[in-house]
Amino acid sequence: MDERRWDDFERRMRDLRSLRAAAALLSWDQETCLPRKASDARGRQAAALEAVIHERLCSPALADLIAELEAETLSAERAAQVRLLAREVRRANRLSAAWVRALAEAQSAGLLAWREARAQRSFAPFAPRLRALVALRREQAAALADGGEAYDALLAIYEPGARLAALRPLFGRIVPELRKLSDAIAETGKSRPNAFGGRFDLDKQWDLSLALVRAMGFDLEASRLDRSAHPFSTGLDPTDVRLTNRFREDDPRPAIFGALHECGHGLYEQGFGAAIAGTCAGEAASFGLHESQSRLWENLVGRSRPFWDAFFPELSSRFPDALAGWDATRFHAAVNEVRPSPIRVEADEVTYNLHIALRLEVEAELVGGDLDVADLPGAWSDATRRLLGFTPRNDAEGVLQDIHWAWGELGYFPTYTIGNLYAASILAAAERALPGLWEAVGRGELLPLREWLRAKIHAPGHLRDAEETVRAATGEGLTEAPFLDYLWQKYGALYGVGR
Amino acid sequence: MDERRWDDFERRMRDLRSLRAAAALLSWDQETCLPRKASDARGRQAAALEAVIHERLCSPALADLIAELEAETLSAERAAQVRLLAREVRRANRLSAAWVRALAEAQSAGLLAWREARAQRSFAPFAPRLRALVALRREQAAALADGGEAYDALLAIYEPGARLAALRPLFGRIVPELRKLSDAIAETGKSRPNAFGGRFDLDKQWDLSLALVRAMGFDLEASRLDRSAHPFSTGLDPTDVRLTNRFREDDPRPAIFGALHECGHGLYEQGFGAAIAGTCAGEAASFGLHESQSRLWENLVGRSRPFWDAFFPELSSRFPDALAGWDATRFHAAVNEVRPSPIRVEADEVTYNLHIALRLEVEAELVGGDLDVADLPGAWSDATRRLLGFTPRNDAEGVLQDIHWAWGELGYFPTYTIGNLYAASILAAAERALPGLWEAVGRGELLPLREWLRAKIHAPGHLRDAEETVRAATGEGLTEAPFLDYLWQKYGALYGVGR
Repeated sequence: MDERRWDDFERRMRDLRSLRAAAALLSWDQETCLPRKASDARGRQAAALEAVIHERLCSPALADLIAELEAETLSAERAAQVRLLAREVRRANRLSAAWVRALAEAQSAGLLAWREARAQRSFAPFAPRLRALVALRREQAAALADGGEAYDALLAIYEPGARLAALRPLFGRIVPELRKLSDAIAETGKSRPNAFGGRFDLDKQWDLSLALVRAMGFDLEASRLDRSAHPFSTGLDPTDVRLTNRFREDDPRPAIFGALHECGHGLYEQGFGAAIAGTCAGEAASFGLHESQSRLWENLVGRSRPFWDAFFPELSSRFPDALAGWDATRFHAAVNEVRPSPIRVEADEVTYNLHIALRLEVEAELVGGDLDVADLPGAWSDATRRLLGFTPRNDAEGVLQDIHWAWGELGYFPTYTIGNLYAASILAAAERALPGLWEAVGRGELLPLREWLRAKIHAPGHLRDAEETVRAATGEGLTEAPFLDYLWQKYGALYGVGR
Repeated sequence: MDERRWDDFERRMRDLRSLRAAAALLSWDQETCLPRKASDARGRQAAALEAVIHERLCSPALADLIAELEAETLSAERAAQVRLLAREVRRANRLSAAWVRALAEAQSAGLLAWREARAQRSFAPFAPRLRALVALRREQAAALADGGEAYDALLAIYEPGARLAALRPLFGRIVPELRKLSDAIAETGKSRPNAFGGRFDLDKQWDLSLALVRAMGFDLEASRLDRSAHPFSTGLDPTDVRLTNRFREDDPRPAIFGALHECGHGLYEQGFGAAIAGTCAGEAASFGLHESQSRLWENLVGRSRPFWDAFFPELSSRFPDALAGWDATRFHAAVNEVRPSPIRVEADEVTYNLHIALRLEVEAELVGGDLDVADLPGAWSDATRRLLGFTPRNDAEGVLQDIHWAWGELGYFPTYTIGNLYAASILAAAERALPGLWEAVGRGELLPLREWLRAKIHAPGHLRDAEETVRAATGEGLTEAPFLDYLWQKYGALYGVGR
């Protein structure tokens, strides 16, 4: 092969990655730093940069290079890079520059209208903006679907290979089990809110967050930790991974589980192999696999008994007054309350995926054209009643609670459930591979688990699709059994209920 | 005219401005937020974005549009926008994409090497990187000079219209006056350092900075204030102007004058007229005019007696212990000490421009090819002795003290002196236009001055070149008389010396 051809391809690919990192910085800054009056300007900056990325992806010279390289015999790494960029190029070429710009502007407008609507607790001001976003996404889905299911074309952006035809039966299997477990727990009458009496100093919570992510082996010289209204993580590069967190003075749990969750994402971003960093392969294999890493640390490790055996003494030494009378057993119970909530991000492990089932149902109909935006609040309330046994008190606690649609993300929600299922499969495999895993966690030693995850999940990046990586690590693909086993075993024991 | 043609031009121009704002964010973030290990990644991101901007500027379609619009009769605003973008386009087309990328990489490498060299207090590790940067800038100067002076081609990037042939005689006139005044003050033996005894709480200094910029009429909802090692300001948009400041516990002056200086820049960035914001005309007319706004507030207002009559009570109420025994007279003297310093950024108003004379002399020889990089530390020391009467103790206090060359900025330094001269001319015009100006300042009322500056200097942006704007506001162009009059009058009175 003419090595200059590869060099040309690699330069273009790395430039695209650098431009995406610049776009990610615009977005990170918007959530953490942007002056109140600068939203419009930021929207224009993001739209201009998205248009540049689209233009570069649609360059005929890049298409020619890819065609030439696809005909060559390449190493596995190079072949993956060509395959991944070719996929992006194909997607970009199906959409016009005008569509890219319209989406960026609709996203900006959508976000502003959503914030306004939430403040008013009314769906109405958001409806026209959402209608525009749904229309753009349906246009995109039609352009990408190749005659298949429109929703799958959007899903594939976040979770390559996922299909509505597989997800619907999957939810069909897990929803009844989750309802059964949740109802059984409710009947015991044992799940009551554990209120904290004292104040948890915010600076000390900040220090605790740092101590936790350090214990997880997160590289603090290649990262930042900031405050934001909603915690999130952004990876600009393995050397530049940014987490945010939020803090409540009356309850340390949001900060603790925010730190564990976001750091789970962050470890994935820091863990891509050096040879693939900055290339198309040096990225998460899917949003579902990304979420598996956050949920694994937040829930499977962070809400486990060994974890609190190790960390409760450190916690109570930081907040001796507020936690007077508490011990590891009580704190462990307080972080495993099961109680249906109207709000997804406050949901426990048992009911969380019911929220996702609801969203998948509704957004698949939106994308399929079977549900009009005007009818969305009603459809949301109906599904909430059916799945969770609630009626939302207002739109802010119902259809407006998530930011995703405001940003035009349709097809994103299922990746949360995929992440939960992968997390359980992956942790079960880690238990088999590391016999002393829980004893180590019980001593506060989290690095053996991180090392195993790094080797099996993080380092390969997107050299393989997510399900292949999970299969290589666990012996099986996307499956619900380990997740349901985990829930019944843990919550069965905690609440004395049987399957 | 075909209005669609204008729309196409305007879209391209605004996109370029948005991309430049994204590049400015990369740079702001690098100085305030970037994780330690992420420098290389940030260098690649900046280089990729600079390459995109260069590519867009070199688009043949844009060149055609400009040629068509240049043949039309346009409004003054539109004509200015076309003229300014045409200038950028012409400059970009003289340089290759490879040069743009090489410069971005050399800047990144230069900055790292400079930091390392400063830590070692030795020029040697920086020399090869500076040599590369000088070579790139000489290449650029040759490409842009059109047979004229190479140094002028670089100078024009920062200060359109400025020429070495005019600056050399200008410095020839001011240097002897500055030496004469500085020597006269030294002979009085009256200028002694005013040490502060107590501690100045950093949070209270932060609050003081905010109070000062608020008094200047700076819009805090369209801005940010952060900490950084060296204060600077960045304008991404009139709605997004970012200042940084630094704080010393033993001395409140760096924070006070850092805030006044950077806010002077910030007011310019917030003040562009709404109709030109986001266009090529909605920008500073020159770096010298930008600096005039910072120096006007920092020095001509901020080191004036009426200013401290107004603000000393507020200052001492914030730091009653540390300022026990101080009054406005003593504090005013403490902020007007004249004493030659080896460090430019610590220099007083009288000797500051001697530092610039030194840099102009040396860098003009570097760009002209009359001085080799290897001989630079020697040339620096010689010029320092001649102009300031010092020998720098080491390279960190000498040739390595400024960041500008490390970033490849050659031709930038003269804009500091131009700014000082413009500031004096502009303030003299404001005094004539606003008879109660100093009485208002003495009551802490800074808005009348800001309003006058906004109308005369800020709002026009780059609709006219800097000297035209100054001439329209003051009746004269770049001239040293008001500045020298100001210095002799103020310091003559403070130190009892005569011209």
